Amino acid sequence: MMRETLAKTDLLSVPNDNTTDDQRAEIKAARAQSFQTRRATVQGLEDVLYFAYPVLDHGFVRVVDYMGDDAAIVQAARVSYGKGTKSVHNDAGLIRYLLRHRHTTPFEMCEIKLHVKLPVFVARQWIRHRTANVNEYSARYSVLDREFYIPAPEHLATQSSSNRQGRGKVLKGEQAARVLQLLRDDATVCYDHYEEMLNEDPDGEPVNADRSGLARELARMNLPLNVYTQWYWKTDLHNLMHFLSLRADSHAQYEIRAYADVMMTLMEKWVPTAARAFRDYRMDAVSLSAGALNIVKRMLDGETVAQEDSGLNAREWRELMEALGRSTS
Amino acid sequence: MMRETLAKTDLLSVPNDNTTDDQRAEIKAARAQSFQTRRATVQGLEDVLYFAYPVLDHGFVRVVDYMGDDAAIVQAARVSYGKGTKSVHNDAGLIRYLLRHRHTTPFEMCEIKLHVKLPVFVARQWIRHRTANVNEYSARYSVLDREFYIPAPEHLATQSSSNRQGRGKVLKGEQAARVLQLLRDDATVCYDHYEEMLNEDPDGEPVNADRSGLARELARMNLPLNVYTQWYWKTDLHNLMHFLSLRADSHAQYEIRAYADVMMTLMEKWVPTAARAFRDYRMDAVSLSAGALNIVKRMLDGETVAQEDSGLNAREWRELMEALGRSTS
Amino acid sequence: MMRETLAKTDLLSVPNDNTTDDQRAEIKAARAQSFQTRRATVQGLEDVLYFAYPVLDHGFVRVVDYMGDDAAIVQAARVSYGKGTKSVHNDAGLIRYLLRHRHTTPFEMCEIKLHVKLPVFVARQWIRHRTANVNEYSARYSVLDREFYIPAPEHLATQSSSNRQGRGKVLKGEQAARVLQLLRDDATVCYDHYEEMLNEDPDGEPVNADRSGLARELARMNLPLNVYTQWYWKTDLHNLMHFLSLRADSHAQYEIRAYADVMMTLMEKWVPTAARAFRDYRMDAVSLSAGALNIVKRMLDGETVAQEDSGLNAREWRELMEALGRSTS
Amino acid sequence: MMRETLAKTDLLSVPNDNTTDDQRAEIKAARAQSFQTRRATVQGLEDVLYFAYPVLDHGFVRVVDYMGDDAAIVQAARVSYGKGTKSVHNDAGLIRYLLRHRHTTPFEMCEIKLHVKLPVFVARQWIRHRTANVNEYSARYSVLDREFYIPAPEHLATQSSSNRQGRGKVLKGEQAARVLQLLRDDATVCYDHYEEMLNEDPDGEPVNADRSGLARELARMNLPLNVYTQWYWKTDLHNLMHFLSLRADSHAQYEIRAYADVMMTLMEKWVPTAARAFRDYRMDAVSLSAGALNIVKRMLDGETVAQEDSGLNAREWRELMEALGRSTS
Repeated sequence: MMRETLAKTDLLSVPNDNTTDDQRAEIKAARAQSFQTRRATVQGLEDVLYFAYPVLDHGFVRVVDYMGDDAAIVQAARVSYGKGTKSVHNDAGLIRYLLRHRHTTPFEMCEIKLHVKLPVFVARQWIRHRTANVNEYSARYSVLDREFYIPAPEHLATQSSSNRQGRGKVLKGEQAARVLQLLRDDATVCYDHYEEMLNEDPDGEPVNADRSGLARELARMNLPLNVYTQWYWKTDLHNLMHFLSLRADSHAQYEIRAYADVMMTLMEKWVPTAARAFRDYRMDAVSLSAGALNIVKRMLDGETVAQEDSGLNAREWRELMEALGRSTS
Repeated sequence: MMRETLAKTDLLSVPNDNTTDDQRAEIKAARAQSFQTRRATVQGLEDVLYFAYPVLDHGFVRVVDYMGDDAAIVQAARVSYGKGTKSVHNDAGLIRYLLRHRHTTPFEMCEIKLHVKLPVFVARQWIRHRTANVNEYSARYSVLDREFYIPAPEHLATQSSSNRQGRGKVLKGEQAARVLQLLRDDATVCYDHYEEMLNEDPDGEPVNADRSGLARELARMNLPLNVYTQWYWKTDLHNLMHFLSLRADSHAQYEIRAYADVMMTLMEKWVPTAARAFRDYRMDAVSLSAGALNIVKRMLDGETVAQEDSGLNAREWRELMEALGRSTS
Repeated sequence: MMRETLAKTDLLSVPNDNTTDDQRAEIKAARAQSFQTRRATVQGLEDVLYFAYPVLDHGFVRVVDYMGDDAAIVQAARVSYGKGTKSVHNDAGLIRYLLRHRHTTPFEMCEIKLHVKLPVFVARQWIRHRTANVNEYSARYSVLDREFYIPAPEHLATQSSSNRQGRGKVLKGEQAARVLQLLRDDATVCYDHYEEMLNEDPDGEPVNADRSGLARELARMNLPLNVYTQWYWKTDLHNLMHFLSLRADSHAQYEIRAYADVMMTLMEKWVPTAARAFRDYRMDAVSLSAGALNIVKRMLDGETVAQEDSGLNAREWRELMEALGRSTS
Repeated sequence: MMRETLAKTDLLSVPNDNTTDDQRAEIKAARAQSFQTRRATVQGLEDVLYFAYPVLDHGFVRVVDYMGDDAAIVQAARVSYGKGTKSVHNDAGLIRYLLRHRHTTPFEMCEIKLHVKLPVFVARQWIRHRTANVNEYSARYSVLDREFYIPAPEHLATQSSSNRQGRGKVLKGEQAARVLQLLRDDATVCYDHYEEMLNEDPDGEPVNADRSGLARELARMNLPLNVYTQWYWKTDLHNLMHFLSLRADSHAQYEIRAYADVMMTLMEKWVPTAARAFRDYRMDAVSLSAGALNIVKRMLDGETVAQEDSGLNAREWRELMEALGRSTS
């Protein structure tokens, strides 16, 4: 849903993209420039280059550089296969073949660099993807801004009773109001005290000249995990797809999925053919275990199989029936 | 200092190692076991295997497994160099040669696995070392304990005025008391509200049956960055040395250096020869740039060189003079 | 087949394991040692530790060290999930769950180190697996032995006419004899000339004192790609499984698959529960694309689907029918 | 030397760049294109984009894509340091500071993609740099060309008597002629037999219809290690500098150094400020161990230090005296 909406959005007219005035000025300046290049260039991505796609209440994702396009994947594959791919005239066919057969190295030949603003607890999940380059805002050097993620009411979910890492229904009324109140108040108090401990004005001078400020690297420890940070994050297309296969998945926490959804949109602008193949062979594909495959074969042979005689445990059985779109009752 | 003390500490008698009763029972059980193995075994590390070395106020580092020893480095090097190393009879000499000449791959043949308890803001620095394996306690699945890092008074440093990422003198008296009060109070309040939002007792049942609990993955965002987390962290000796060269360095933030210091002690027990070479050729070595080398040569030729005619800027000059143990006045 | 045979083989009685006399002496010495350890120990792997499993005509694989066992996977997962996994009492169930849901990090907590002897053209495929540690015999430092891979007659396959990277039927009679003759003769001539250019006896002294020897790093370029090399190769269980999923696959070149098959046997001794789960959820599993899944659903609903109205191209259709065990005629 | 020459070469007029006619046509077509982009663009690199720089007798290096420039390093650093770098107005000063203090992540924000043609024995050294993306010509899919590296007479070095991995003086006269003869003849014979075993014409049809061809993946094993291969190789600037610090070093084998020298030239065109800092702080820098530093201090204090009372072994002493430009006699 979000994805579809965003894809149609004219970014140029987004009124609130969660950037600061300084950042907006930088974006405007960057977009005013234009150069001649002999490199592979993707018009669809150039159209949105530097623009900030807002995510959550204060975050954003924006593309600040990229290398390669769909044709670069094909080009790398043809180097590998030499004359062996001469007969495949169709680039899309080759890209789909590569993805289907896990020939992943040609996808590593494309690279993208993003500027992301995100809450620290999301950054902690994100950073687990190790094959990427990162420069994060350092709270040892500089003072963090007073910005915290406060969930929109529709995302204030209860703990799922069936899934230890999942969410259940949405909190309502007083219960929701109480949670939002707590999150807002604690962020405010913690940040007030962060500032008091720092005792540092925007020019780095003491606010109160009678006392010393605590070192920035210490004071920041008082900030809650929903404080926003920023980073430049650069990765190749293969690892981007791996990131998306885990983080745009329905089991991912909503807050990181919101970023992944935007990144999927950007990937579609960048490498539309690879993006489509990625959906078909990865995002919307299912893996059947040896046991599950055996059951499908039995069912195709006309047998009625029940969980009890399936060889699968209850959970695997339920997952299989869901994947096949069949009732488990 | 800490290092020396720890090295002499009889871990068996540490009264407070920052572990829980459950963990202490597990450690006792693990240490009660003993197996026969044909693998390389290091008695010095076996002596402290599983024991928790306390770090900061609630943290610890403990070795939970290891692979290889000093001899394994030599063995790998001899595979590479074949008969070419037959003449080097001395293992220590070979290890020192390897380290001196950046032949790093033999050091990758040793592996160590640690269990670490550490504040989140330290974990965020630590995780930037990408060539390692990590399993961290998940606050999506489980509830974090009420434990926060509160600096000891001697570590309550002011911001350095000369170094943007450094610390200056120590806060005293009322100013120190105020900072400690803020850190303690905010942690207490934030954790109280975390618990209230969760509404979950140790068995996962609601504390207050009249209302729903907020999803764990959301509630945790209210916790400050000094909350403690835990992880298993595994890396090879080469990457451990790289970690230590950055994190046991005097420019590292004290709180991560406290962990690095303990890890250095453990490395010395594990691979004493490599550890000694590492000190000589990395930790206590200095790098002279082309310009700095030129100045040293001129000085050795009897010339008196001043910063103005050194070709170095003021900062580089100061760093060089400090490295050479010479006054900069 | 090979796998099954090997699993039953008493390695102690293997008459020809492709090791040299020196290596045999080292293996004997290593196996004679035994130590006490508190580390996780796997008896099944200790039984074969250091032994060489012969592969191809002169190659081998042997385990020289390992860290962790099935329980170490579980232990790491329980650190991550905390109290969240208390209800799962069954280790095998947890391991299967982890593998099924691509929770890969706990598998990274186990590490294995192999000594492998292999032809250079196999080494060139193998080294593409980047997340591993390698120390290879250096032909800059030392002289390579006169050992070349010459395929057994049953592996002298023709080029497949349908698959550009596959093999067809086996060469017979004179044609086979001619190929073997060429491979043997060229290896012999190239090695004779390598020795002549080196002009170096086993002690590094000139064979012919009247002339100089060519640098080893140059002379080696005359050796064909079937010359044998050796290395120590160390990786974690997650990356080992990734290696096996690609290299023990029927599409892998036979010569590297022969190594992967032995490594699968060794993995089964090391972590039997994980190995079984790996077979079910990876090796013997199939991935259904969005399109393929849709066809399976239609077939389960009783529809007769033909390639023409499947939305799949001919090749994908054939692959799907094969996976489902159905005729494509 | 080579470096300086190349830097001045007008690539457009290179008569023999070791490319095929097909490749030359592709390069011409690629260079004829030009696009508008908002991305960072480096005119100096655009000028030589796609052109092949010849290396050795049949090899080349050419840039096929790039991302980022000197300013991108600065930009990433400023994201990390936030307002903390506002006072540093000078980009070159910041880049030099980053490199001097091992702040390596900003250099990872630039990426370069090369097309390289190189002998297999060079490729085997090169591939050991794991943090890179590679697509290599596959001899399973396609037939390799009849091209082998034959050293120029001035590179036909003898084995060094003092350094097991080094070269000594150059072979002359009959001895040189004999080596060249052997290398040429063996390559010719091996390739003739490769073709005979393949029995495949350029269109994939049998040359001799009476017999079957050996599978390409098998036939290639008869080719010597000086056969040429090709690949696309992509890496970030930090890892490129690490590659160059090892491979443009005087201890590297000449044949890979020839490639590194060209890559250094290309780096200078791409990121001239970083390239200069890299020379000063890495390539031309020396590391002094704790012991060596101590000796330098004693010498600066006027003491005459001899190896015997230096605490260094003979080799380290010699290396130090050489670095300091002092006689060891």
